[in-house]
Parts: sequence; C-alpha cells; structure tokens
Amino acid sequence: MGLLKTTDSKEVIVAVDGSGGDRGMVHIAGAVNFAQTMYPNFKALVFGSALLHDELKRSRIDWNRCEFVETYQVIPQDSQVSDVLERYTRSSMYQAVLAVQEGRAHSMVSAGGTGPLVVLSRHLLSTMENLRPALCARMPAGPGRYSLMLDLGANAQCSAQDLCDFARLGDAAARLYFGLEAPRLAILNVGTEELKGSHVVQEAKARLEASKGLNFTGFIEADRIFCGDADVIITDGFSGNIALKSAEGVYRIFSNAPGIKRFFAKMGKPDWLLPWQYNGSLLLGVKGNVIKSHGNAGKEAFAVAMVEAVKAAQSDLAAAMQDNLALQK
Amino acid sequence: MGLLKTTDSKEVIVAVDGSGGDRGMVHIAGAVNFAQTMYPNFKALVFGSALLHDELKRSRIDWNRCEFVETYQVIPQDSQVSDVLERYTRSSMYQAVLAVQEGRAHSMVSAGGTGPLVVLSRHLLSTMENLRPALCARMPAGPGRYSLMLDLGANAQCSAQDLCDFARLGDAAARLYFGLEAPRLAILNVGTEELKGSHVVQEAKARLEASKGLNFTGFIEADRIFCGDADVIITDGFSGNIALKSAEGVYRIFSNAPGIKRFFAKMGKPDWLLPWQYNGSLLLGVKGNVIKSHGNAGKEAFAVAMVEAVKAAQSDLAAAMQDNLALQK
Repeated sequence: MGLLKTTDSKEVIVAVDGSGGDRGMVHIAGAVNFAQTMYPNFKALVFGSALLHDELKRSRIDWNRCEFVETYQVIPQDSQVSDVLERYTRSSMYQAVLAVQEGRAHSMVSAGGTGPLVVLSRHLLSTMENLRPALCARMPAGPGRYSLMLDLGANAQCSAQDLCDFARLGDAAARLYFGLEAPRLAILNVGTEELKGSHVVQEAKARLEASKGLNFTGFIEADRIFCGDADVIITDGFSGNIALKSAEGVYRIFSNAPGIKRFFAKMGKPDWLLPWQYNGSLLLGVKGNVIKSHGNAGKEAFAVAMVEAVKAAQSDLAAAMQDNLALQK
Repeated sequence: MGLLKTTDSKEVIVAVDGSGGDRGMVHIAGAVNFAQTMYPNFKALVFGSALLHDELKRSRIDWNRCEFVETYQVIPQDSQVSDVLERYTRSSMYQAVLAVQEGRAHSMVSAGGTGPLVVLSRHLLSTMENLRPALCARMPAGPGRYSLMLDLGANAQCSAQDLCDFARLGDAAARLYFGLEAPRLAILNVGTEELKGSHVVQEAKARLEASKGLNFTGFIEADRIFCGDADVIITDGFSGNIALKSAEGVYRIFSNAPGIKRFFAKMGKPDWLLPWQYNGSLLLGVKGNVIKSHGNAGKEAFAVAMVEAVKAAQSDLAAAMQDNLALQK
C-alpha cells in the first residue's frame, strides 16, 4: 500500500472518476471548483473522456490544481465482476482507484456503479482484516447530530458474520467521527423484541452480545433511524438502501407540497434532514479512501461527496480505521 | 370453511382481538363506536379481559350490536410457534380467528403480534392454493390514488417463490380493489437495472417475466413507493416493513417541524400521505378475512383497521380472492 501521509504532504489529492452518474459529467466541474475554493491545498486528479475535458476547460477551475487524464472506457452498470477486473482497466473508475492504490491520490470519489466500485476497491486496495467492506454514511439524527449507517448498498445479501463485520467497521468509524469512547451500535430490524426478524439479524445479535469491546445495544426500527437512538445503525445493503430511498421519497413529497418552499423560507426547514447532505458514502473496510456518490446526485450532492473525499484524505481515514480496528482486539 | 356470505346476512360481524397493541385496549371502544356509527349493520364480537369489558361498559357503544366474550390469556409477542397453537387456545387472538373459521364472524381485526396472528390464521383458516400468506396494505400514491404493497411483515425471510406467490396475491387483490384488468406488478429493489439486487429478487424477476397472465413490469426503487409507478409493489416482509417505517419516521419529523401545523391547517397538508390511513393490513392468502393493525396504532389508525375489517366482511374479500386466483390459471 502506497497511501501518502497527508501530514507529510503539501497537497491533498483527490482522484475523480469522471465517468459515472446518471446525470453525466455536468456536476464535476462545479464540485472541483467548490473544493478548490474551500480547500487551498486541494488538488483534483480527474479521469474521464475528452468530452469531460472540454467541459472542464469551459469552467472556472484552477488548472494549477487540477490534472486531467483521458480515459477511454466506461464501465456499464450491469457489468460482471470478472469483466470489471479484466476488461475495464482503461476505465476512469479503474484508473481512479489505481491512483489511490499507487499513492498518486489520497482518496477517490465516484458516482459510478456501486457493484464495479466495490469490486475494484476490494481487488486493488485489498480489505482490512478480511472484513467485508460496506458503504457507510452519516445520517442526520436531529439538528447538528448524526448517526453512522452501514451497509447502504455494497452487499445485497449479507450473512450474520457480515453484519458483525459492519459492527466493527462502524464502531471504528464512529470513534473517529464522533470522538466517542463506546459508540452505541444497533441492528436495524422490523421490531425491537427478542424474537423479531430474520435468522440473520437474530444470529448477528447473539454474536454481538457475546463480543467484547463493542457497545451493542440491540435492535432499532426504521422509524427511529433519524432520531439518534444509536450512533451506528447496522444493516444489510439491501434493507439499508431501501430505508434510505424510502425516506428520500417522503422527503421529496413534503418538499414539493404547494406553498411549502415559501413556508420553509420563513420558518426554517428541517434542513438537517436534507437528503443531499448525506451524499458521499465511505467504502469502509478497504485499505484506501473510497467515496461513493449517488448516481443521480445533484450539483450540491456531488460537491458534498467531493468534500467527504477531501476530508477522508486530510485525516487519512483508512489508516486511522486500521489503527482503531487493531485496538478492538 | 364456514364463511358466511355477507349478502345472505343482515349483519356484518367483525371479531375483535381485544388483547393486542402496545397501547393496550383504550382504542377499542372508540373504534367499535366509530364502526357502529358508520355502518348500521355492523356488529362487534369482542374477545378480551374483564378489564377490557369494564372499559367498554364505560363507553358509549351500542350493546345491541356488540357481544363481549371474556378470554383469559394474552399471547406474548415473543411466543414460539408451537406454543401459540397449543398453549394459547384460550387467548383473545385465537378465539377471534376461530370465530372467523367457524363462521361466527365475517372478519377479524387484531393489533397483537404479527407472528402469532400469521401462525394462527394459517393453522385455523388454512391457505389458498398453498400460497404463502402476506400482509398487504394500500399505500398512498398521490391524492386519491393507491398502490398495494406486500409483504409488510408476515415473512421476515422470503424465497423467490414466496415473492412470486405475493405477485399472484397482489394481482388478485388489485383487480378487486382497483377494478384493473391487468394491474402493474413490480418488485422492490435497490435499483432498476437488470443485475441489481439479491439473488432472490433476480430469480423472482426471471420467474415473473416467464409467467403468463401477470403484468409484471420489473423493479421499482423505494423512493418511488408513493408515486404510483406500480399498482402492486412486491417485497419480502423485512424490507417492506423497513421501507414503511422509514417513511413514517420522516413523515413524523416533518409533521413536527415548528409552525408546520398552522401552515398545513392553511395550505392543506399532503394528507394523502398520512401514515395512519394505511393502517389495517390484510393478511392475503388465508381462507378468511384477517386484518392486522399496527401494534402502536393510535385511535384513528385502529378505527381505520376496523373499517378495513368491515369492508373485507361486506365484500367477502377472501372468497373473491379465491375466485380471482382461480382465474389466473
């Protein structure tokens, strides 16, 4: 692993996968510009097509702090695992992850397909302690408060052991993010009673109760996700994704109610719940800082993901995660 | 099966499990009273403790249209399947389902544990065509519009075949509810692309695409649940429950934003999204009309579940379901 130490470096370099995202490339210039303004020591290393290069050239970004590398492939969303590793080495996503692996960038951000990104990251960066990597986001839990939630879509099917892996990753991350001594960990379930839910969550609960060094508090229901009842919410990637998107659907309906924009302009919206602010999931458990943006992220959302990538680079999150995981034993 | 034909009967009799619900028995009198006011031919057959009897006696219900049967057991939420069938025959839930089985009631409603209710209903009423029963609710899909969604918690773990069973049940129910010739069926997934999601949803999709007589349209994402993109949304009980509760959590946060009650009083709330209005899930696939209310249903929500029970009784929903399922072949 050739991860640079941020503290030894004058620059924070973020590799940007310029191919992904349902909305194409239009937000990349804006996000690079935003990060350049916010962070004087930020530099972008953008991988993408000649078209993206043209788009960037028309923007106001500072070329002293942006390097562009033309790539010639885009990984289709529905690619097979073997294809991603063998056939798409010239893609922007592959090249951006490779830049992290080779130490040419401190972190990478992508709005491309989750499946390919996870496969490439596991393969090129390798995993921490053989734990199963998971996508983790900071969920709003009241004004100025947050919980971590994982997995949000890296693994569509999870075993009890996977959930226990996520508990360790979430615990290590919550210590870093929130400075907590013993983050409260809870498993997302359809009820809080002992016998509720699938065999998977039942078994994961039993194992976590038996494990030392983790502050496991039991089950949590989905209507309490945004209430701060737990510091880390553990779930399989399927349920996690569905919980998040369902919440976003309702948020959107409320936000579009007639007259509500004027109301919120006056009264103060529950802004802490804004879906785009928790864009930029961290792929925890791989030896490198990989940030996943929603495929359909808007301008603000992609900029938030870029900021997450800068922050992960500044703090060398992956290295700190490894230190914390080692302390759990 | 001794299901009464509603058309032959002067009365619509709803058996009420008077034990269940996190909030106890306080809402039962109100719901009985409400249904008596709404439906002149409605009669309640309430099973419960002497305490509930006292509570009812203090209320304004019409005793000419309410019969009370004292029961002496309450099924704990975390009971084992075998216990429910063998040890709790004197419970209010058992007796209420038995009343449907024996034709003494046209439907039953319970706010008790989902697990026990499903076990008892399958055992006492038996299943339709060996399909796996599922909890189904009408989800708001815009003002005055609805979709059906199932399973909402009867089955924590589901196979591809289970999802195909739910598709048949949902199709039959949507024909009845919405008068549609070919209801659009979709499977809830983490993406709409071909290769997204678990093996279970992948295989269910392949089977439903190959099946004749069902209008299967593919995958649907959770942020589109409330948008009317499908007439029937098919999911496992774990994900379905989590999607619903996550939505309710966000709804509650918005509804409690400072000043919003006054705003909505003026501007008209997106009332069609009110969580309590879709209380009262139907347990589809058992040979009898079984309605499940949320355990923590409020007064309005439990009354809505009671109304669902009256409607299911009036239309003899279970019998109509069987006719529709037979037509699918």
